[in-house]
Amino acid sequence: MEKTALKIHITQVEKSRINELDPDNIQFGKKYSDHMLIANYEDGEWQEPEIMPFQNFSLSPATTFIHYGQAIFEGVKAYREKDGNPVIFRPIDNWKRMNKSAVRMDMPEIPEEIFIEGMRQLVALDCKWVPTTDRTSLYIRPFMIATDEFIGVRPSEKYMFSIITSPAGPYYAKPMSIYVQDKYVRAFPGGIGNIKAAGNYGMSMYPSHMVKNMGYNEILWTDGFEHKYVQEIGTMNVFFVIGDKVITPDLNRGTILAGITRDSVITLLQEKGITVEERRLSIDEIEEAYHNGILKEAFGTGTAASVTSIAKLTYKDEEMVLPDPEQFKIVNWLKKELSDIRHSRKEDTHGWIFRV
Amino acid sequence: MEKTALKIHITQVEKSRINELDPDNIQFGKKYSDHMLIANYEDGEWQEPEIMPFQNFSLSPATTFIHYGQAIFEGVKAYREKDGNPVIFRPIDNWKRMNKSAVRMDMPEIPEEIFIEGMRQLVALDCKWVPTTDRTSLYIRPFMIATDEFIGVRPSEKYMFSIITSPAGPYYAKPMSIYVQDKYVRAFPGGIGNIKAAGNYGMSMYPSHMVKNMGYNEILWTDGFEHKYVQEIGTMNVFFVIGDKVITPDLNRGTILAGITRDSVITLLQEKGITVEERRLSIDEIEEAYHNGILKEAFGTGTAASVTSIAKLTYKDEEMVLPDPEQFKIVNWLKKELSDIRHSRKEDTHGWIFRV
Repeated sequence: MEKTALKIHITQVEKSRINELDPDNIQFGKKYSDHMLIANYEDGEWQEPEIMPFQNFSLSPATTFIHYGQAIFEGVKAYREKDGNPVIFRPIDNWKRMNKSAVRMDMPEIPEEIFIEGMRQLVALDCKWVPTTDRTSLYIRPFMIATDEFIGVRPSEKYMFSIITSPAGPYYAKPMSIYVQDKYVRAFPGGIGNIKAAGNYGMSMYPSHMVKNMGYNEILWTDGFEHKYVQEIGTMNVFFVIGDKVITPDLNRGTILAGITRDSVITLLQEKGITVEERRLSIDEIEEAYHNGILKEAFGTGTAASVTSIAKLTYKDEEMVLPDPEQFKIVNWLKKELSDIRHSRKEDTHGWIFRV
Repeated sequence: MEKTALKIHITQVEKSRINELDPDNIQFGKKYSDHMLIANYEDGEWQEPEIMPFQNFSLSPATTFIHYGQAIFEGVKAYREKDGNPVIFRPIDNWKRMNKSAVRMDMPEIPEEIFIEGMRQLVALDCKWVPTTDRTSLYIRPFMIATDEFIGVRPSEKYMFSIITSPAGPYYAKPMSIYVQDKYVRAFPGGIGNIKAAGNYGMSMYPSHMVKNMGYNEILWTDGFEHKYVQEIGTMNVFFVIGDKVITPDLNRGTILAGITRDSVITLLQEKGITVEERRLSIDEIEEAYHNGILKEAFGTGTAASVTSIAKLTYKDEEMVLPDPEQFKIVNWLKKELSDIRHSRKEDTHGWIFRV
């Protein structure tokens, strides 16, 4: 599709709230930028998007997504190039993935120009909200909800697509301590574990809370058949460095989100000549590698969390303490490489950087 | 718990919208009564509930349930006794089930007096919205959503519980045609298939839409391991009359909703001396019974759908056409029995009728 300047009606705030933001203490997901985008789907087509001051939605209590969870979202980040211009990291991939989620949830696909050009204009308008330091970014949250005022169970006829943005500090400040789940199940073949539907997250709150009470940061989910093969961590894909190979679960069973950071990491590792295996990985194999001293690194990847080291992995009674995450060679290299690309200190050879 | 008159602040509408309702043409879930109830949970406790005119919610676009689906609901019905007084059918059971959903979704349990006494006062205030004819009712929708304005994935600290009501005609006017699902999966052990979480319904829209396009009303879900054992239908539990026994899937694997109509039906059948087996039931067994001519009746049960006959069941290439549903002895008896109890034409020996 040609990149056209989609006409978006913009209503600007009278006074920016940017002064409320303390640039030295940016927390994840606490403050929202001055503006948001809204596009409604009605009568079988998308209406013209609008950018307006960030404000509350007015929704009937009978709005169908409230009751039946026909709701999807994406997570995208904007950074600043070394000269200060805002850039967005791989938004086209998020657009494509959002439309996969839309299809599975029986929602209308979002046109590229609404998603991408809408996001571009929103970030351009709120560009002073894109933080400048290396571990910060502007977190961009596109989402879509079903908006019929009807409480029968059926796909909605009306939808609202929206984008809000939020200056973001690191999601995890420290390496994670992970508990391998062997009771609750996040995703199953034939379900929706491979898309970003709201329902996937709500159902994980209770199991996650339980492991947090036990002193862990997150769950490593396993398959629902045998609780044997690892899937993903909370909001992240998972990687293990075993010997000289990097291993991550494959996407073939529809139970794992096709992470965009996951894809970036695989691409960068392969280009560096490191073997990456996408395949089923059992907890037994991880334990065996640990006992043989070849489990060198473990980490999670995601837009919110970027690349985050795993310091400890507990499976039943076995506590696997990894070597010092500060010394994780691959993780540290990936973090620097990704950071250099995002901030345009290194050439973008993959077309990942979208200039606002 | 003692039945106390919980103090609820009530703001009444200036003018009722009851005249908008055509009593001879009541459709499911299209019109909402004059008032609604809201109770907020903040600072670790439930605040005083309020009854107010039915009105839109004002919600931040960052409200956590919009993104992560921490949302649950119930379905309850009010009828009229033969003398015209409104009664609610088994609300205590819905309250208990809602709190089971709350626990699994890491949400606060709702006190009995807010749920029951709040519902009682709401229905009493809007009692003219309870339809009078036999196949109609006032559908009551209690629901709870997570209301923190925060887009990190974690359980919310604030919640809103609400009840809205809607005059309801029959959910299915005719016997259903059902397709046995052998690709998509609704629920698996360790998941949330046994609770009324919003996410369970959104994920079913696409598979349901596909079978509707093929000419069926609903999906009969099967287990995710082998697609062999039947679970439930769309918004209903499922029963099969095979020979002189009534068989329905048991609740032991956490994949099936513990329907309140299901329970009422089992109770009534057992009291009548009919054998009810709650156990695993394979599609093979159903097919075999069909071929042997002993598959006599099949039906779904649910609050919205009450007891609804199945006219046809299709599994892969096999189309099982049941005998004329108009002649279903057990279904017709159950419908009459339940209707007589709901409208107090028959004595309520089970404590199912809650007088408003």
